[in-house]
Amino acid sequence: MRQAEQFELAIAEKPAQCSIKDWVYSEIRSAILSGRLKPGIRLPTTRDFAKLYGVSRGMVVLGYEQLLAEGYIISHTGRGTFVSAKLPDRLANAPAPHNRAGVPVTGRLSRLGQVLADSPFFFGAAEPAPVPFKPNQPDFQHFPLKIWNRIATKRANALRPRKMGYADPAGYRPLRVSIAEHLRYSQRISCSPEQVIIANSAQQALDLCSRLLLDPSDAVWMEDPGYPGAKTVFAAVGAQVVAVPVDENGMNIDAALQHAAHAKLAYVTSAHQSPIGPVLSLERRIALLEWAERRQATILEDDYDGEFRFAGTPMAPIKSLDASDRVIYMGTFSKLLFPSIRLAYAVVPQWLQTPFVSAMSLTCRHVGLEAQIVLSEFIAEGHYARHLRRMKLIYQERAEAFTDACKNRLNGLLDVCPISTGLDACAYLPAGFDDVAVSERLKQSGIEARPLSFYGIERKPPDGLILGFSAFTPDQIAAGVQRMSEVL
Amino acid sequence: MRQAEQFELAIAEKPAQCSIKDWVYSEIRSAILSGRLKPGIRLPTTRDFAKLYGVSRGMVVLGYEQLLAEGYIISHTGRGTFVSAKLPDRLANAPAPHNRAGVPVTGRLSRLGQVLADSPFFFGAAEPAPVPFKPNQPDFQHFPLKIWNRIATKRANALRPRKMGYADPAGYRPLRVSIAEHLRYSQRISCSPEQVIIANSAQQALDLCSRLLLDPSDAVWMEDPGYPGAKTVFAAVGAQVVAVPVDENGMNIDAALQHAAHAKLAYVTSAHQSPIGPVLSLERRIALLEWAERRQATILEDDYDGEFRFAGTPMAPIKSLDASDRVIYMGTFSKLLFPSIRLAYAVVPQWLQTPFVSAMSLTCRHVGLEAQIVLSEFIAEGHYARHLRRMKLIYQERAEAFTDACKNRLNGLLDVCPISTGLDACAYLPAGFDDVAVSERLKQSGIEARPLSFYGIERKPPDGLILGFSAFTPDQIAAGVQRMSEVL
Repeated sequence: MRQAEQFELAIAEKPAQCSIKDWVYSEIRSAILSGRLKPGIRLPTTRDFAKLYGVSRGMVVLGYEQLLAEGYIISHTGRGTFVSAKLPDRLANAPAPHNRAGVPVTGRLSRLGQVLADSPFFFGAAEPAPVPFKPNQPDFQHFPLKIWNRIATKRANALRPRKMGYADPAGYRPLRVSIAEHLRYSQRISCSPEQVIIANSAQQALDLCSRLLLDPSDAVWMEDPGYPGAKTVFAAVGAQVVAVPVDENGMNIDAALQHAAHAKLAYVTSAHQSPIGPVLSLERRIALLEWAERRQATILEDDYDGEFRFAGTPMAPIKSLDASDRVIYMGTFSKLLFPSIRLAYAVVPQWLQTPFVSAMSLTCRHVGLEAQIVLSEFIAEGHYARHLRRMKLIYQERAEAFTDACKNRLNGLLDVCPISTGLDACAYLPAGFDDVAVSERLKQSGIEARPLSFYGIERKPPDGLILGFSAFTPDQIAAGVQRMSEVL
Repeated sequence: MRQAEQFELAIAEKPAQCSIKDWVYSEIRSAILSGRLKPGIRLPTTRDFAKLYGVSRGMVVLGYEQLLAEGYIISHTGRGTFVSAKLPDRLANAPAPHNRAGVPVTGRLSRLGQVLADSPFFFGAAEPAPVPFKPNQPDFQHFPLKIWNRIATKRANALRPRKMGYADPAGYRPLRVSIAEHLRYSQRISCSPEQVIIANSAQQALDLCSRLLLDPSDAVWMEDPGYPGAKTVFAAVGAQVVAVPVDENGMNIDAALQHAAHAKLAYVTSAHQSPIGPVLSLERRIALLEWAERRQATILEDDYDGEFRFAGTPMAPIKSLDASDRVIYMGTFSKLLFPSIRLAYAVVPQWLQTPFVSAMSLTCRHVGLEAQIVLSEFIAEGHYARHLRRMKLIYQERAEAFTDACKNRLNGLLDVCPISTGLDACAYLPAGFDDVAVSERLKQSGIEARPLSFYGIERKPPDGLILGFSAFTPDQIAAGVQRMSEVL
């Protein structure tokens, strides 16, 4: 049995957790794939194989049968079993994938895929705790974790077959009802629960709106400086981003009307312009609505932290004035509760309801049900409203601590804009400072400060920093500002 | 005070849960928006308002201040407070959104948005329990719910601040390690955990691949009949779907090569052709790989239920032969565990790792962390492998019960193809039967049977039915087949 002996050389010992059948199959298969067993070569009989390795012949037969079924070997009655001659030499000589060496093949991305491949977000493993003054970080220390975990634990233990199938791609209905109810009181938005659609994130809702509403080279207005996550999502459908300047009343609607009245969509952070901070004035809100009605355009109102407004009630959103159903209103629980919850929502016009849900079902099927149930109970029991009220006070205190510390220690070096809501502050650097360079220097001293340049859409913004104060205690804030003053 | 009296007529009583300030604000605001208070009209002084309604003047001042801040009213020193003259009549006369009547405005969708608006999936609230013979339904009765709930409960109670922030968009690393490990044993795929990317669903992974790899009018091969969820996702990026016929060896690669060798992507359900059932032969797998290498094209291998193969080990996927990194391998836990878990994965070539994770972060940020942690522990404790082994036997028993019942009761009426894996059977109707009509008739008798026509990509498939047997006990199967025989 020449073949059997030759064969013996190549076969590895059976791993403990592997069945004899699987071992026979995979050893012969990799000998074929690696070229050690050439096409046309005869295999030992199952009897010889079994004797040679001291294993049960029945198991060897099963292994051979799998190889036969898959076409690696063929059997000629009376003559024996052979490595298939149909296997191309190229395959037989190819190294097994895990042995592959050298430069990986670079595949081609589509033109718009290249845009998707260039996300403005950091990606990689999460950091254990945010460093001051990382932006967009809600505080977790004051989150009612005990209450949340109690509800989550109860739900985790209550998974039953009727909640294990596919669910409504529009979202868990009681959650949609709670959100519609909350928006009526807190934002003066009148909408039906059917108009509230649950997404994994505001980013996902933004992406779906972009795909549903924008054809390649359609114009879309966005604030400059503005949110880079929106810019990329618009670019990823081939739309033409029209950068609209921002002043103390928010997006300059007149400028947008003059240069690109033909746009199909306007993306606006009305309650708290991202990243600079102003509120879009009522006059501009009305001008925006009139434009959208006249042009049958759509307004995408992204309200990511407006509910934290420190003084007075938040200004009612554009959506609350939307008599002709032109506004999509987006909110997220990432900032209002915590990011890993992975829940956001869009309130869509009636005409967009079915298309939006359809797009959701096609690109995601639906968002996980468990988190939706837990959040819905958390809201229903009143914890959500209570948490928002509490955090508003805490964030206000931290905003004041941050502003005061900067005034005391960084006077003339950092001009902090008035902070009226939310999690982050915008601060300008003196002439001659480069914000990217400053941010890098601060990073070396353990301070995270995002350069305002990061938010430039078309024009380079003034040199400045976006600084998150919300996740840090007044002591941490004081220490962080102290370190900043040493660097600056 | 004429104005105050006129004003009095319109104001509604303060709801119990509403603060005086909010009540003042919203009543005046809706009076303005509804046109009851015209631009330029003078409001009562805060003192008169407070007296009139018997409320604290301080609260009224706060309400007025909010209206002033938002631009609804203006104050002229010494003359009083007026409804802003800048508010256009149109707005003041517009009915409040919740009072709006008549036909909703129909907005315009983008050309590709129209495709997304036409999902082939059912959407709406989930049914309480599936009706026989609904396809794609894993069984939940044999799922180790106690074990799952134990792990989920433990995790739900262990949410801590360091798991509340944004996480890695590629997925929870221990889960990616477990999947890579499982694939090595069960599918003979050698891949690093970095190549395993967690998605919300196979549908989401499919959509991202489509966007990353296909430019408008790029050709993509898919099986005909085939999976409509893939067809729509390809159409939604403007790609040209090339329908490739299917025979007993799966997708006819020769036919595809003859007609559209220039394609950029081939989508193939190699382990269990969806919906007909054959396994893609080894020869064709090799031809497919050779084409992809020659043309720098990509293969998207969708393995949705191959792990349930009843006889023998599942045939090793194309990915296991992929020496030159051209194959994306996709798997989903919706079919292997249960759909509401919302977890799937893609094993991507090295060159696609970063672009894929970037696209994920941009269109979704990341998949919920809690379910990933629970699944990862479920796998690590060995329950996953055990569950798959167990369900394979149960599904095999049900497949046999289904085949036997059809043979006995529907002989000559329904020709059931041999069932080798998974959850569903394909069965042909005799000449002269229309599958859509049959499916509708069966529905009236409480039987769900999906017409094979549903899967037609370009050509109309032979009349037949796709019948799910997996979620039903042998008794339910017998009763269902009995009912089918009465209808047919």
